[in-house]
Amino acid sequence: MKNVPFEGIIAYPITPFDKNERVDIPLFKRLLERLLVSGAHGVAPLGSTGVLPYLSDEEKEAVTEATVRQVAGRVPVLVGVSNLTTERTLYHAQFAERAGAQAVMILPMSYWKLSEDEIFRHYDAVAAKISIPIMAYNNPATSGVDMSPGLLKRLLQIPNVTMIKESTGDIQRMHTLRNELGDDVAFYNGSNPLALAAFAAGANGWCTAAPNLIPGLNIALYNAVCKNDLNQSRELFYKQLDLLKFIVAKGLPRTVKAGLQILGEDAGCLRSPLKPLPDAETRELEQMLSKLDVKSQQDCQFA
Amino acid sequence: MKNVPFEGIIAYPITPFDKNERVDIPLFKRLLERLLVSGAHGVAPLGSTGVLPYLSDEEKEAVTEATVRQVAGRVPVLVGVSNLTTERTLYHAQFAERAGAQAVMILPMSYWKLSEDEIFRHYDAVAAKISIPIMAYNNPATSGVDMSPGLLKRLLQIPNVTMIKESTGDIQRMHTLRNELGDDVAFYNGSNPLALAAFAAGANGWCTAAPNLIPGLNIALYNAVCKNDLNQSRELFYKQLDLLKFIVAKGLPRTVKAGLQILGEDAGCLRSPLKPLPDAETRELEQMLSKLDVKSQQDCQFA
Amino acid sequence: MKNVPFEGIIAYPITPFDKNERVDIPLFKRLLERLLVSGAHGVAPLGSTGVLPYLSDEEKEAVTEATVRQVAGRVPVLVGVSNLTTERTLYHAQFAERAGAQAVMILPMSYWKLSEDEIFRHYDAVAAKISIPIMAYNNPATSGVDMSPGLLKRLLQIPNVTMIKESTGDIQRMHTLRNELGDDVAFYNGSNPLALAAFAAGANGWCTAAPNLIPGLNIALYNAVCKNDLNQSRELFYKQLDLLKFIVAKGLPRTVKAGLQILGEDAGCLRSPLKPLPDAETRELEQMLSKLDVKSQQDCQFA
Amino acid sequence: MKNVPFEGIIAYPITPFDKNERVDIPLFKRLLERLLVSGAHGVAPLGSTGVLPYLSDEEKEAVTEATVRQVAGRVPVLVGVSNLTTERTLYHAQFAERAGAQAVMILPMSYWKLSEDEIFRHYDAVAAKISIPIMAYNNPATSGVDMSPGLLKRLLQIPNVTMIKESTGDIQRMHTLRNELGDDVAFYNGSNPLALAAFAAGANGWCTAAPNLIPGLNIALYNAVCKNDLNQSRELFYKQLDLLKFIVAKGLPRTVKAGLQILGEDAGCLRSPLKPLPDAETRELEQMLSKLDVKSQQDCQFA
Repeated sequence: MKNVPFEGIIAYPITPFDKNERVDIPLFKRLLERLLVSGAHGVAPLGSTGVLPYLSDEEKEAVTEATVRQVAGRVPVLVGVSNLTTERTLYHAQFAERAGAQAVMILPMSYWKLSEDEIFRHYDAVAAKISIPIMAYNNPATSGVDMSPGLLKRLLQIPNVTMIKESTGDIQRMHTLRNELGDDVAFYNGSNPLALAAFAAGANGWCTAAPNLIPGLNIALYNAVCKNDLNQSRELFYKQLDLLKFIVAKGLPRTVKAGLQILGEDAGCLRSPLKPLPDAETRELEQMLSKLDVKSQQDCQFA
Repeated sequence: MKNVPFEGIIAYPITPFDKNERVDIPLFKRLLERLLVSGAHGVAPLGSTGVLPYLSDEEKEAVTEATVRQVAGRVPVLVGVSNLTTERTLYHAQFAERAGAQAVMILPMSYWKLSEDEIFRHYDAVAAKISIPIMAYNNPATSGVDMSPGLLKRLLQIPNVTMIKESTGDIQRMHTLRNELGDDVAFYNGSNPLALAAFAAGANGWCTAAPNLIPGLNIALYNAVCKNDLNQSRELFYKQLDLLKFIVAKGLPRTVKAGLQILGEDAGCLRSPLKPLPDAETRELEQMLSKLDVKSQQDCQFA
Repeated sequence: MKNVPFEGIIAYPITPFDKNERVDIPLFKRLLERLLVSGAHGVAPLGSTGVLPYLSDEEKEAVTEATVRQVAGRVPVLVGVSNLTTERTLYHAQFAERAGAQAVMILPMSYWKLSEDEIFRHYDAVAAKISIPIMAYNNPATSGVDMSPGLLKRLLQIPNVTMIKESTGDIQRMHTLRNELGDDVAFYNGSNPLALAAFAAGANGWCTAAPNLIPGLNIALYNAVCKNDLNQSRELFYKQLDLLKFIVAKGLPRTVKAGLQILGEDAGCLRSPLKPLPDAETRELEQMLSKLDVKSQQDCQFA
Repeated sequence: MKNVPFEGIIAYPITPFDKNERVDIPLFKRLLERLLVSGAHGVAPLGSTGVLPYLSDEEKEAVTEATVRQVAGRVPVLVGVSNLTTERTLYHAQFAERAGAQAVMILPMSYWKLSEDEIFRHYDAVAAKISIPIMAYNNPATSGVDMSPGLLKRLLQIPNVTMIKESTGDIQRMHTLRNELGDDVAFYNGSNPLALAAFAAGANGWCTAAPNLIPGLNIALYNAVCKNDLNQSRELFYKQLDLLKFIVAKGLPRTVKAGLQILGEDAGCLRSPLKPLPDAETRELEQMLSKLDVKSQQDCQFA
């Protein structure tokens, strides 16, 4: 396995907005620094959590540049560059490479359902013109297309497509990836409630927004897996499961913002039509965080 | 029922591109004129068929202006203005109104699943700042969100939300709309293979890309319904069903372009990642059109 | 089309039980007579409504014989003989033929998902040893297997498989049956809320438990279709739609029994684990029937 | 946790038939003895693998008695007694208790979708009249009803409902059971391809037909989990995954019979409509078993 710069917990920052719904870069950097300090093994701006599809080209570029500068080489950076058109996907992938990212993540966004051949050509066209590795991201719920194991196998023949992120929420997909693609493929779990099952299945890492709120628990789970301790992994997983399910069910941008505010951090505003988490749900989140005794950045670092 | 400018066959033009994948406005106007001449009762640029989400703001504006000018008041114009953010949706809705469109169509596009309240506020924010009517468009397969009859009922309380386009493909939805919302609501079918069942259920119109290829059959079906002739409606529907299913299953932009070329019309190029209909499927389409004896614009007007 | 003894409204009686949950044959005959008097064009004992799978072999035989005697040739009789094993299916099909039924209905019941070949051999083994026609019944929700149009086409090659009952609830299936199998196949709608769309699609009949409660409306809809009057068909359909949806959603044996009691008819008991319709839902049904002004057997015959 | 007689690998024997499709009790005992010798921690006759729903009352009784006699107290016996009616379920549960079984397994079989209240009363009626514990079995694909975690929680309030078998194939269900029902509930995995994930999630046992073919691998996986060795568990799981997926996908009765024959064991016939595994698939199974070097009973016991 070569050219695979990620392992462990890959943390997804949110993209905060100011009161006029403009991207707030200084606040973004502050929230990103929290993730870095908390021990994340990698960061991934402009993911779903970072509301990539709601941003203009200029805003995406600003977030990319801000990330690389703030990280300053401490951990690898994975930039989301997915776009409906091949031309715009390539544009942002090249921008990310020039800015200094270690890899780009590409979801085969589709309004019109793409054929396997169209998806292959989309990845191939981008891959041919960048030199950093690509993480192919399968998430039918947001992209509208479910990449079969056969297609993923084909994509992996493109030299710099070296990683797969699986977010169907079906553990059998990871079993198939591992079983059919062999030890050679690096696969990552993108479904928070599957964290335990995915590590049991052999996932190389966990792409998650949860470290914005409970980095200690996320990293502790990964460490238990590395120590081959199934019982401790299970215990740590069940401790955080309710929160993982909650942030997914209610939407990551809303819940991470609400959670940060509960923890005393300014998390800015959302961009319409996304609205803040309703009050009842915010109280529910507050109780979960309180039960986990996650109250401040200091407490987060117990791992 | 007031402020409902559409009835019958509302035709969806494609957005053609040149060899460099740039929007080809002169060709767009030519293809639009075909639809007008063939007898469509309304036209709807920038729908799914018109690959709205693959276009830049400037391109959308150019298509909107070109449509209004070319139509020149002959039939009402419905402009698609759906966008992920509320701000951009409003921007394009206002542009369409200023350009002279009779109504706008809005799909609640969502990357992050929106709550019913977020969707309502999205429509309300746009409706408050335009004076032309809105067609609310329910198409879970492309928008990622399925608007319940309850939500649609709520949307209809906004004064200029006066029309609903249903594309779930489930005839029960139209029954529910009619049964719960009463004769007062104007609803339109957006699912081609449901054309007969939807008219039987009382749909006011059929939003379709099929008139690019078989306008005569589409209009004849509508006329048979208007004449209360169930047997003739059934016969006309079965005649066109295979083609309706084919163009939906293989993707409207690809199949309409291929079909136009079979009929001897220049239809330009597609924008990547969308690629032309593969050869085997093109031949299948050719046989269908040949069987229907649809060979030229003249033949199309047999209704 | 030959050997197709059914057309129009085929009514499904319930199988009533006494207080000890034993089949009540005298009451069954009384309720069956109601259906005959109300104008049904055929009757079908031992369907889902008649809780076929909850009965012993002896009980099934008693119901079959009681039906044929009570009907006494007034309308054709269709007996449900579905069973998990081929041996028992054949046994009951032969019993029905000897008893004097005009046809049998066979659902490919499956606990273990059957291959298409296993289903074909199941039908073929039964068909070879009876001489009355078979209605093949597709209802994935209860049988656990969805027979493809291709398989149905294959089944129709067996000489005495001459009718298809479709209950997937997807109108496209009926379009496909008609379009691929031609005018030659007799197909029947088994999904109550699809009654209008199925007749529009060309269904030969409607297999339904609704005539236990609203025979007049059911027959009037069929008559309007026969008169080629789409507008009247639509109006009559919408009038009964809420009730059709209700009885399907809450379970036919429960709702038909509750409805009969509301109409002043003794409908006996259910067999456990099935329990009577809860009170709140019974009141809802009462309101629907009251709104339709269906209060007694006399009122039912308004068509 | 009390009255939970099962832990580890609970093996499901097939019910073999002779050439006239009659249950072959002597052969059943021989195949059962294989399971016992191979080290299974419990046995479960009359499960899905044992084609329970295809058997007459007398056949079920004969299989129950044969099992208890053959096992002779070496391991606990779990007898499947599911039936559509409450009366027949109770009858067989009482028979199993008298025959000497340690527990019964009950799936809420339903032709007509049961309400949660009906399901609760079904279990309660049976539980009240037997004194051995009940394993409630959730398998929507075969029962037609999906018992919610809330309903399962309610069922566990019945004193002798002490175990849950989960076969939805969704690992989140097991997480929820464990998280909401606490350490107190004993839950078992009934989905073969979930074996690793379920043990990671804390399942008490694995209900499986696989020990008919690969008992050594099944038991070795359980042992690795007991030793808290995640890496070895993963390795052992991936070794058997293809076979586990195959026997589920192609149907347990067919594949277990074919596999036994490949291993040189007489496995009798199937009851129609079930037919033997087709040739091409039999060869596929042969290759899998050959690759695993599972050739005879002796080889099976390597764990």
